Amino acid sequence: MALIGAGRIGANHAELIARHTPGAALVAVADPTPSAERLATQLGVDVVELSAERVVARSDVDAVVITTPARSHADLVVEAAAAGKHVFVEKPMAVTLTDADRVIAAARNAQIVLQVGFNRRFAPGWKAARAAIDAGRVGTPQLLRSVTRDPGPFGADPARIPPGTIFLETLIHDFDALCFLNPGAVPTRVTAIADALIRPDAKAAGHLDTAVVTIEFDNGAIAVAEASFSALYGYDVRAEVFGSRGMVTAGDGRCSDMTYYGPDGISVDTARRDTDLLHSAYLGEFAAFVDSIRTETPAVVTGADARTALSIALAAIDSAASGCAVQITDVAVMA
Amino acid sequence: MALIGAGRIGANHAELIARHTPGAALVAVADPTPSAERLATQLGVDVVELSAERVVARSDVDAVVITTPARSHADLVVEAAAAGKHVFVEKPMAVTLTDADRVIAAARNAQIVLQVGFNRRFAPGWKAARAAIDAGRVGTPQLLRSVTRDPGPFGADPARIPPGTIFLETLIHDFDALCFLNPGAVPTRVTAIADALIRPDAKAAGHLDTAVVTIEFDNGAIAVAEASFSALYGYDVRAEVFGSRGMVTAGDGRCSDMTYYGPDGISVDTARRDTDLLHSAYLGEFAAFVDSIRTETPAVVTGADARTALSIALAAIDSAASGCAVQITDVAVMA
Amino acid sequence: MALIGAGRIGANHAELIARHTPGAALVAVADPTPSAERLATQLGVDVVELSAERVVARSDVDAVVITTPARSHADLVVEAAAAGKHVFVEKPMAVTLTDADRVIAAARNAQIVLQVGFNRRFAPGWKAARAAIDAGRVGTPQLLRSVTRDPGPFGADPARIPPGTIFLETLIHDFDALCFLNPGAVPTRVTAIADALIRPDAKAAGHLDTAVVTIEFDNGAIAVAEASFSALYGYDVRAEVFGSRGMVTAGDGRCSDMTYYGPDGISVDTARRDTDLLHSAYLGEFAAFVDSIRTETPAVVTGADARTALSIALAAIDSAASGCAVQITDVAVMA
Amino acid sequence: MALIGAGRIGANHAELIARHTPGAALVAVADPTPSAERLATQLGVDVVELSAERVVARSDVDAVVITTPARSHADLVVEAAAAGKHVFVEKPMAVTLTDADRVIAAARNAQIVLQVGFNRRFAPGWKAARAAIDAGRVGTPQLLRSVTRDPGPFGADPARIPPGTIFLETLIHDFDALCFLNPGAVPTRVTAIADALIRPDAKAAGHLDTAVVTIEFDNGAIAVAEASFSALYGYDVRAEVFGSRGMVTAGDGRCSDMTYYGPDGISVDTARRDTDLLHSAYLGEFAAFVDSIRTETPAVVTGADARTALSIALAAIDSAASGCAVQITDVAVMA
Repeated sequence: MALIGAGRIGANHAELIARHTPGAALVAVADPTPSAERLATQLGVDVVELSAERVVARSDVDAVVITTPARSHADLVVEAAAAGKHVFVEKPMAVTLTDADRVIAAARNAQIVLQVGFNRRFAPGWKAARAAIDAGRVGTPQLLRSVTRDPGPFGADPARIPPGTIFLETLIHDFDALCFLNPGAVPTRVTAIADALIRPDAKAAGHLDTAVVTIEFDNGAIAVAEASFSALYGYDVRAEVFGSRGMVTAGDGRCSDMTYYGPDGISVDTARRDTDLLHSAYLGEFAAFVDSIRTETPAVVTGADARTALSIALAAIDSAASGCAVQITDVAVMA
Repeated sequence: MALIGAGRIGANHAELIARHTPGAALVAVADPTPSAERLATQLGVDVVELSAERVVARSDVDAVVITTPARSHADLVVEAAAAGKHVFVEKPMAVTLTDADRVIAAARNAQIVLQVGFNRRFAPGWKAARAAIDAGRVGTPQLLRSVTRDPGPFGADPARIPPGTIFLETLIHDFDALCFLNPGAVPTRVTAIADALIRPDAKAAGHLDTAVVTIEFDNGAIAVAEASFSALYGYDVRAEVFGSRGMVTAGDGRCSDMTYYGPDGISVDTARRDTDLLHSAYLGEFAAFVDSIRTETPAVVTGADARTALSIALAAIDSAASGCAVQITDVAVMA
Repeated sequence: MALIGAGRIGANHAELIARHTPGAALVAVADPTPSAERLATQLGVDVVELSAERVVARSDVDAVVITTPARSHADLVVEAAAAGKHVFVEKPMAVTLTDADRVIAAARNAQIVLQVGFNRRFAPGWKAARAAIDAGRVGTPQLLRSVTRDPGPFGADPARIPPGTIFLETLIHDFDALCFLNPGAVPTRVTAIADALIRPDAKAAGHLDTAVVTIEFDNGAIAVAEASFSALYGYDVRAEVFGSRGMVTAGDGRCSDMTYYGPDGISVDTARRDTDLLHSAYLGEFAAFVDSIRTETPAVVTGADARTALSIALAAIDSAASGCAVQITDVAVMA
Repeated sequence: MALIGAGRIGANHAELIARHTPGAALVAVADPTPSAERLATQLGVDVVELSAERVVARSDVDAVVITTPARSHADLVVEAAAAGKHVFVEKPMAVTLTDADRVIAAARNAQIVLQVGFNRRFAPGWKAARAAIDAGRVGTPQLLRSVTRDPGPFGADPARIPPGTIFLETLIHDFDALCFLNPGAVPTRVTAIADALIRPDAKAAGHLDTAVVTIEFDNGAIAVAEASFSALYGYDVRAEVFGSRGMVTAGDGRCSDMTYYGPDGISVDTARRDTDLLHSAYLGEFAAFVDSIRTETPAVVTGADARTALSIALAAIDSAASGCAVQITDVAVMA
């Protein structure tokens, strides 16, 4: 495999592929910055390229892992697909529905495996929750909740965060998780409220760092997705599905079953970063990607899944701006 | 004290007052049904009346506890206040803002203690959460959540449930809890989605049994209140307050710290009924009521608190009907 | 009621009786120190005596609560019984089996209610555990555990702690709890290991602050009781009963269902003191005492229960000294 | 690698090595029974042998994983070491101290990596607990506990279980875990109580299925290890270390952070089998084994560790038989 994009999450993925994914080898890293060289040296990878094109052209590369900035994803997937490479692309797969459709078509035409980085589907709690739902233990989902809070304190420059980021890059995880946990149901209507509560000074320039999104599904279920860019206690991802026969929850902030009792009280073992908290989920998604390639079976997280989550995100952006509920079909038509 | 209304919650309150509230004695029970007689016999209370008027007139009654159907509350409080009796009234104190204002004025004029039955304020977890907020450990609240799910299966006749009940009688607890946990902040805008997911057949007749309400506050906080009439696993009340410095949660469904490990797994000690789960909260609210009367200090849950919660409920009713966000001030003016 | 002994736990009990126990009134406090006067003033109690004799003689006293140092308990109970007063005595009821028998006989002869302060029996988790056992959900108990750790840091002067205190005053709670949670079974053999790990400098003078005691019962069950005088994280009492059909645990260090998520992680709401952690248990034991007096029924924690726990404590003292297992019957015969 | 012993745990290990351990390949399976053939087919392994000798002799085998019955371990390790193969051997490494010494010497002479299967050291909670201890957060350990309960109901034939099994094969995990969690301390004295509570009918023939072992260490710490062959609620492994500055616990029976709320209450996601509950620990131990081989560094769980755990087990066997405490040094000398 080759890595395209050697930033923070790219470095995480590269290490997992190089060292912890049976059946995979990392043979090249592409990034225009010096971080590519550093990462390659650290992992013993020989080939370093400044551009994606070069690695996509290599005959010793069967698959690429795309971890570049979100707005470049669609073009890179199309390019890799055209070269016949299997693709693992971080979320969001695309930021417009037109691009999403273009990516899906390219993957279909090239008959490649296209997997999107919705890691939560591979987290033990989410998998067990879905299994309980599939087993009928929850009944028909009626009320759902999904939360993503990035570890704080928030230190980024709001001016460098593209508009819509909280919906397109953060809550997109929740939108997918809610669809995953309400299997077979179609999201129909979205109402969003968003604000700049962490950096109110940046609100006038369009910055949004806190959001609550309500999603209605065609099976009657009402879901709430919630995000913040600054949880002082660490990375916080959780889900809850309440149904006609019971409830399941997933996510408790713990990264092990260790508990510490000290002078300040009783505290559990927590993680500050997604790459710690969701370590086994990241391992799981690459194992699944390798497995799909080897067995020539479709990816377990598809381009269609990514398109659905995107349609919710775009509707949420509209709703947050207008203050009104937005039909998903309107988004689909608009885009 | 005298009890007015010998239904399920009245019987609970009567027993707590008669047997478990130091400084209080139950001297009379009023209810037009035979349940009054039964309850009085069981608790050793001598006086049973068919009407509230009769107990309000008794000179050996210092205070009344009103647990009649919601729509009768306002008139009964006004009547008791006129007779100079202190009043503990179950929520909702009133179902219109006009009535709420009338009740508040009557209590003020009579200089009685008027306490409203928002029991969650007395539950250990909620008190501890509020203490953590007051101590600055949460910072400024940004995202809040409050949940109420009644124990299922839902067996009532939808036709006998007044319209608006899920907002006026169930979620009113959450509306108050959210204000309690966002101290000093004023609710400004409400968006509600409600449906009949448990009894879809009754929806056409106006029945609503599942609801999600989003409330915006003047300090920027966004709160979500959620209710269902049928949680198969028992009574479920929880709260979460996420702020600039941390988070507190309250409510875990346990009624003791016992855990059972059996052939079906590990399960905690849960309660099916509010009167079990919130036992100590009920004790606490009556102890506080007695204390306010004895020390001639204002009730810790006031008519003004009840009016605020009611204004949210009324806005939610409007929003659920119109599909649009509703300003609280519009409600206040309308009512 | 009258309080005899106005120390730390006496003050706790006095307040609960005076203010939080329906049906009880505190009319007198006896203690040779100025703390009696202070406590009485604080609680509005008119009668303060320097000696137990004087309060035992009062006709307006129906019952006494004895919270003096352990070695004075037996004589005081006998004296109060002789005066026909009901007695609630803190643990240990006596520190020799001869005294225990003398106390039991005195109570029987005077036909008074004699209740011993094994508070854990009234803690919600322990009651629920016992209920699960009684319901057959645990099957036959096979492995039991009970823990008591006093909140640290340990600051007392070891020279002022009588020998055997860790067994006679601390672990005695665990010995009773283990009998309570293994209903009907008789303890037969005891093996104890004890050390001065907190204050090793005081070991030569006989100080013991850490102990592990193994108790075998006639139904085959093997129980472990563990104590320390210095848990830096606060008061820690727990129980576990593993049986042929399942397991129950009680005690989790939490004093409410509040959880706090802050920069240092996720922590639950804990208590440093027994009087906070076991608040409802203390309330429960006085309510039970009043109930037994009113209904003329035997105490729910009897002198015989206290004698059994004492027999384990005395065997543990022997075993810790000798390094060998000790038969309970040997203790019974010896004493 | 080659697997020697294709029983239940052998099959688990084989699958982890063949499919989930980067850097490892499974090339041969040896077992005299048809299970070897089945396992090899399932995992796509070409070489199947009836004897260990044959796989040890293969030049394409760098390392062997020994999962045969306990009493054959020592000889097999010595044989593999003689052939220069690295060895991962399931616990117990040996059942006599003489054999343990022989194994240690053989590994040293052959300069192979010898790792013993104490999986708990690789479980996230145990690792985090040890990290907290190493960081000084617990202070000096004073009271420790380790529990192993096999999932029930117990269905084996007691006559086919070798004497001492509960100590040599079950509690050996706890003995090692207690040493791991009391780093640097040396066990000095052991007191054991054991019984046949699950199958009392088999006691006369020497069967023991329930045991409590107390271990004293040279740093003053007192540890309790507890085992049962039949926990109806599933596999139960836990640890607790209480020290002068705090406490850590590990193990909570959960195999994910999913919680289910159903008509029977709130239950967590549990595992019935060690291979599910400790899945990540098993992965971790094989990753560590590969890493030691590749980097030519000593195993992280050594023969010396196994010898220490064995010395506790042998002392426990003596103590259970004699009813007296046994010095570890006596065992070492005896053996």
